[in-house]
Amino acid sequence: MGRWEPDTRERLQNAALELFERGYDNTTAAEIAERAGTAKSTFFRHFADKREVLFAGTSLIADRAVAAIAAAPPAVTTLGLVDEVLRSILPIFDPAKRLWYGRRQAVVAHTPELRERDLLKQHAQTAAITGALRERGLTGLTADLVAALIGLAFHVTYTRWLEATADQDVATLAAEVLAELRTTVTALT
Amino acid sequence: MGRWEPDTRERLQNAALELFERGYDNTTAAEIAERAGTAKSTFFRHFADKREVLFAGTSLIADRAVAAIAAAPPAVTTLGLVDEVLRSILPIFDPAKRLWYGRRQAVVAHTPELRERDLLKQHAQTAAITGALRERGLTGLTADLVAALIGLAFHVTYTRWLEATADQDVATLAAEVLAELRTTVTALT
Repeated sequence: MGRWEPDTRERLQNAALELFERGYDNTTAAEIAERAGTAKSTFFRHFADKREVLFAGTSLIADRAVAAIAAAPPAVTTLGLVDEVLRSILPIFDPAKRLWYGRRQAVVAHTPELRERDLLKQHAQTAAITGALRERGLTGLTADLVAALIGLAFHVTYTRWLEATADQDVATLAAEVLAELRTTVTALT
Repeated sequence: MGRWEPDTRERLQNAALELFERGYDNTTAAEIAERAGTAKSTFFRHFADKREVLFAGTSLIADRAVAAIAAAPPAVTTLGLVDEVLRSILPIFDPAKRLWYGRRQAVVAHTPELRERDLLKQHAQTAAITGALRERGLTGLTADLVAALIGLAFHVTYTRWLEATADQDVATLAAEVLAELRTTVTALT
């Protein structure tokens, strides 16, 4: 506990990203730890393996989404749940980390092992969200469909935020995506 | 070419499934080949690695879906494309292989490496379908949303078909799912 520093986790993540950018396969957990100025054992106190380093935020997203679904007032419509969930996740979009997330996204996209882990995390998020929607009483295909809409709204908002030229307000972006999604669903029927 | 037998591929798949059911990690490509009564080199002529053995049908699904989207008459509505795609895939649901697919599904669900490959394949299918929808002129979120609906319709139909007690007609199952999906989408708005 003595030598534990509050920013160790973040230092490990930064070191991992920098090393992964040069090549994922030949980077070891020991090298990440060394670059972060800490011990290998510290690395494994924070992360199960080198794949996990870039996925620390994914369970936070599912936790917030599940909490937002449970806390939504009874009057909220089924489609309104998509808005509630997306809005609950927005605080995670930290403007100070936007460029870092963009670099992280690029490394994940180019590294098959990280892409697999990413899809597994997304799948777990969708399962958690579908479960929370069923808890709320959504039955049959409705829970699956709303979970898919939530995934889509999040994915598009996140992608647009990463691609924005300046530090565009994510709440504005999210509102645009939600309005677009609503129009799109309505146009289908 | 001389010793090539038409059913070698299927024998390899059957052998792999049987061995994977006893344990995926300690099964080698050589053992699969031996059990199928063929050479290790033959295994690698058919599959890139042992993970691939159970995913031979996945590109067929994407190919059929993409072809169905391109071939759909101009009068077909956006939501009607979901019907066109699902119907085009139904011939792949071979009643004679239903129990085999059920066993395959169970092995994939219980083996992290196979689940990851499965998600990667699904992701590639969705990307191919979204691309075909954009080719057809669907813009913005509509292509993503319709691709998600196609994925959902396929997934639910396939799951219900595997869980059916007898050899239930898959066309009837698919029609029920499509009607349910249409009702669900309409109820959202």
